[in-house]
Amino acid sequence: MTGIAIIGAGRIGQIHAANLHQHPLAEVVCVSDVFDAAASRLAEACEASVASVDELLDDARVEAVVIASSTDSHAELIRRSAEAGKAIFCEKPLDLDVAAAEQSLSIAAKNDVLLCLGFNRRHDPSFDAIKAKIDGGQVGDVEVVSITSRDPAPPPVEYIGRSGGLFRDMMIHDFDMGRWLLGEEIVEVFAYGGALIDDAIGKAGDVDTAVAVLRTGNGRLCQITNSRRCSYGYDQRIEVFGAKGMVRADNHTATSVEVASKDGFTTDEALPFFLERYRDAYRLQLDKFLRVVRGERVNIPLGIDGLQALKIADAAQQSCDEGRPVRV
Amino acid sequence: MTGIAIIGAGRIGQIHAANLHQHPLAEVVCVSDVFDAAASRLAEACEASVASVDELLDDARVEAVVIASSTDSHAELIRRSAEAGKAIFCEKPLDLDVAAAEQSLSIAAKNDVLLCLGFNRRHDPSFDAIKAKIDGGQVGDVEVVSITSRDPAPPPVEYIGRSGGLFRDMMIHDFDMGRWLLGEEIVEVFAYGGALIDDAIGKAGDVDTAVAVLRTGNGRLCQITNSRRCSYGYDQRIEVFGAKGMVRADNHTATSVEVASKDGFTTDEALPFFLERYRDAYRLQLDKFLRVVRGERVNIPLGIDGLQALKIADAAQQSCDEGRPVRV
Amino acid sequence: MTGIAIIGAGRIGQIHAANLHQHPLAEVVCVSDVFDAAASRLAEACEASVASVDELLDDARVEAVVIASSTDSHAELIRRSAEAGKAIFCEKPLDLDVAAAEQSLSIAAKNDVLLCLGFNRRHDPSFDAIKAKIDGGQVGDVEVVSITSRDPAPPPVEYIGRSGGLFRDMMIHDFDMGRWLLGEEIVEVFAYGGALIDDAIGKAGDVDTAVAVLRTGNGRLCQITNSRRCSYGYDQRIEVFGAKGMVRADNHTATSVEVASKDGFTTDEALPFFLERYRDAYRLQLDKFLRVVRGERVNIPLGIDGLQALKIADAAQQSCDEGRPVRV
Amino acid sequence: MTGIAIIGAGRIGQIHAANLHQHPLAEVVCVSDVFDAAASRLAEACEASVASVDELLDDARVEAVVIASSTDSHAELIRRSAEAGKAIFCEKPLDLDVAAAEQSLSIAAKNDVLLCLGFNRRHDPSFDAIKAKIDGGQVGDVEVVSITSRDPAPPPVEYIGRSGGLFRDMMIHDFDMGRWLLGEEIVEVFAYGGALIDDAIGKAGDVDTAVAVLRTGNGRLCQITNSRRCSYGYDQRIEVFGAKGMVRADNHTATSVEVASKDGFTTDEALPFFLERYRDAYRLQLDKFLRVVRGERVNIPLGIDGLQALKIADAAQQSCDEGRPVRV
Repeated sequence: MTGIAIIGAGRIGQIHAANLHQHPLAEVVCVSDVFDAAASRLAEACEASVASVDELLDDARVEAVVIASSTDSHAELIRRSAEAGKAIFCEKPLDLDVAAAEQSLSIAAKNDVLLCLGFNRRHDPSFDAIKAKIDGGQVGDVEVVSITSRDPAPPPVEYIGRSGGLFRDMMIHDFDMGRWLLGEEIVEVFAYGGALIDDAIGKAGDVDTAVAVLRTGNGRLCQITNSRRCSYGYDQRIEVFGAKGMVRADNHTATSVEVASKDGFTTDEALPFFLERYRDAYRLQLDKFLRVVRGERVNIPLGIDGLQALKIADAAQQSCDEGRPVRV
Repeated sequence: MTGIAIIGAGRIGQIHAANLHQHPLAEVVCVSDVFDAAASRLAEACEASVASVDELLDDARVEAVVIASSTDSHAELIRRSAEAGKAIFCEKPLDLDVAAAEQSLSIAAKNDVLLCLGFNRRHDPSFDAIKAKIDGGQVGDVEVVSITSRDPAPPPVEYIGRSGGLFRDMMIHDFDMGRWLLGEEIVEVFAYGGALIDDAIGKAGDVDTAVAVLRTGNGRLCQITNSRRCSYGYDQRIEVFGAKGMVRADNHTATSVEVASKDGFTTDEALPFFLERYRDAYRLQLDKFLRVVRGERVNIPLGIDGLQALKIADAAQQSCDEGRPVRV
Repeated sequence: MTGIAIIGAGRIGQIHAANLHQHPLAEVVCVSDVFDAAASRLAEACEASVASVDELLDDARVEAVVIASSTDSHAELIRRSAEAGKAIFCEKPLDLDVAAAEQSLSIAAKNDVLLCLGFNRRHDPSFDAIKAKIDGGQVGDVEVVSITSRDPAPPPVEYIGRSGGLFRDMMIHDFDMGRWLLGEEIVEVFAYGGALIDDAIGKAGDVDTAVAVLRTGNGRLCQITNSRRCSYGYDQRIEVFGAKGMVRADNHTATSVEVASKDGFTTDEALPFFLERYRDAYRLQLDKFLRVVRGERVNIPLGIDGLQALKIADAAQQSCDEGRPVRV
Repeated sequence: MTGIAIIGAGRIGQIHAANLHQHPLAEVVCVSDVFDAAASRLAEACEASVASVDELLDDARVEAVVIASSTDSHAELIRRSAEAGKAIFCEKPLDLDVAAAEQSLSIAAKNDVLLCLGFNRRHDPSFDAIKAKIDGGQVGDVEVVSITSRDPAPPPVEYIGRSGGLFRDMMIHDFDMGRWLLGEEIVEVFAYGGALIDDAIGKAGDVDTAVAVLRTGNGRLCQITNSRRCSYGYDQRIEVFGAKGMVRADNHTATSVEVASKDGFTTDEALPFFLERYRDAYRLQLDKFLRVVRGERVNIPLGIDGLQALKIADAAQQSCDEGRPVRV
């Protein structure tokens, strides 16, 4: 059993805790949160104790920490965890600031601890199968990756303000997927964005609709479309086109049911949001993290992946602001 | 050019006339119908003359006749056309009476004329592709054929009365398809039917809903479901299951458009009825007939196929009436 | 928490144990099996103790028993559990003998204990959604139910011998589904079957391929096709046709991925077998059982449903043997 | 009957001639081509005479001309046809030079003749249904249009040289579709392109793979991906996303057949190329042109649409060359 501490008992922390609680190789040792009640509730649910960050870093049973607290606490928690020699799983983003993210990576390296990043989508069985088919040669040389990512409804405008903006908060997942599936570093980005859904988002200085195009050093391309609102559920699709063919993953639905009537043939809407769509991905993500901690060689996104995606997001934001392509 | 006379200027006769008029190897020489006005209209549309049956059988330019008149005239027209040495394409059914159908076959044979039958579905590109895949070995030994066939709306009750009943009028197409795809003769049939849609159909002595199961000498099976009413268009599907896999053809739609909304993903209803669904099949059917007339070796349903399907239909009707399986 | 004893630590018992172990309202108190090692292994996995049947029926903590032992033990275990006042969840079939099944029902009734039956498919979210759409009126009056059910590969011939035959062992699930979706009792059955896959199955007195048609008192129809072998996975589809439309559930796949190449567009094969296809159904089934035990009103298949399905299976077997429709 | 002259007897001229020959309201009066043999063959096929351009413009029976000759002849033929008072249907592009295209428009306007442009895709029933659903409000305010357009194989490099480049030759169709579906003028374009398929294309100064993003004055967006090579046929898809939902058209296939095997479920590849994919569109396009010539009010792309698409293509080419967004 690998002892784990969970820092952050919010929505994401709860998902991680439940997955770890059910995992035969993990033991949730303790839970920490700035709100005591939240920590207690989650600790009880996974038969763990409540602990402060000091206490959990000091606890020899804790081999690894899962950081699911607010973004502005990530850098400090990574630093302290690294110095305490704990393996680290950190939710995305590492930080909203590239310099801080770089420092997190160097501290983890200096202390020789594992720093994994919560890019959950890489673990989705459908997207993972796309990657496997690329690696297996079924697509041939990859030429264009197309990613569609639409949330069901915008977050509260208060959240928008501290989110870092659509590119760093939402499209960052797609930047990581594009980079991963292209198999090369992105060298330049161009992005258009606007507040087509809600003026309040525009007044808060952000966009709610955006498209971006990415280019690698070898001229491979990626196009991404994001929207903060989608009537038919959480729209999550990827298509990879190459010399030998194309592979795509369509949305997932709750059932395989189709209704036929005079209005045509109707299937379910897409699954509502990330908790449903990426249920398996969240579970598999921590399973892989555990296996890496225990010494297996498993592919899993690391700190460097979080850093690279953040750099692309910064470039996209700048491109959108200045109306020109920006080098990463 | 092959000279052709069309007998019967109704709905089906018009389809055949239009397809022949556009065919580079066919010349519609004349049109005949018991209603002069209908004959004139159709003759004009395909730049042909009007003729009586006597005249057209006497006309040396007429190499082949297309019989699209009412079912009760088929036997007599086949006899006379055969005696006049014309190649014959006859709409289904040959006749509602097996003895009459058998006599038609023997007269055609005695006069050594071609007698083709209008089982249009065999020429549908989707169903034809199923047959090709079976013949190409992709399904392995065929074990079970499943056919779904539903009309959009019941015909007038007056039509029901003279149609020979659902089994001889509607399911006869499916009996032919089942026999063709199984690649063996049907030896026994069991059928259930009822008037679930319209009591008037039941009072007219017919059923509007039926399922049948067919068995070949080697124990291969076919199941068929028919309905005289279908809210989502003309439902025409076939599935063939075998040792190595399955092949199926789904309904055809007018467009490839899908609408996504909070109610899910909706595609078009099925094409409305046989004129739309089997447009290509009708065209290809006469093209093949022409090629056979001109000496090519092409697979096309013959009189014997019409006779065998009629025998299965008789057995199915008897099974439905008597509540027991009936040998064909 | 509801205390539960699991009798039978084989493949199905293990599924039930895992689902109960993870359920927040259930506590697996003990496990029993004729093989001690199997009982120990499963007891350990779900943090329970090992017990003999005598002991567990005597244990006051055990409110309910889950019977997942071999079919020939069901009747006796139901009797003893009922007399001990335990709520009962029994795997299908109740028994291979109708009289024994009837006695089980009457003993449960006399002792006023709940007797639920493990028709897992009713709890599948896709099939459950079909039922909900029927009940919600989207299909209109149901006229024809069509069920396709194909196993990936035949069981060992030894199993065939004691299984009761395809109709009682495999198609019994479909009989239950047909009856449930038609919403009426089946009054008559006709079935064709044969050993098209493996002669050894035929020599063991069973069939490996079968189609059946069922009729209700009001003339509603159900058609079923079964095969013991299917190259593309575990083929589980249902279609319900009615006055206002049609609703169908297609197979489930592991991912939503589609590969496009010169050979066309290819999606995943169907999920391999029941453990994968009905994973959710097994979980939901025991959740509902627990809720019924705890006093909620929840629809769940009962002993009577097992009995009715068995009677239909007997009739189908007789029909197949004697070549005539048989009243249920 | 409307008398029509066809100028250009190549592949496209032949399609137009066949469609006009079968149209009940059109009469192909004469055919003209720089190659006499080509003109003769096509004239014979549609029962017309051969004529020089001088002769056909002088022929009072010719009410309309269909210009399907090489691009460099379009401007001159439009000028002369306009001055002769003929209604004009011109294949895309009007010209490779914006000034020349503008002059064509002004000459047509001055002579008060109809100048229609052959943007065939607008007449495709699936894309037309998308437009109808947008206009019917099913999508809500349109926010993002996504267009995928991939040819099966690159044209000869000689053709590339005189084609005007991918943006003016191939993506020009998508620019027109994007503009049409967004319902607003495009104000800015950004494009990335490269020769990922064939170095020879790059050496000829063109690209074979490109993505572009377009923005309207109101900030609506369009993303386009083009490739000159596609293993699975002619990939032609459009998706329109808006406030209330999404509508998309998938590829068309030759049949509705699906094969199931241990490798999964496989449907047909996309139709091979534009002759098959846009067969209906070509027919409907000339039908609409004829109806406009005869005085009906029908929506059909005009010279101005050709000009606007060309301006977008020029901007895209410049963007790709200079690495910056370009105003249209």
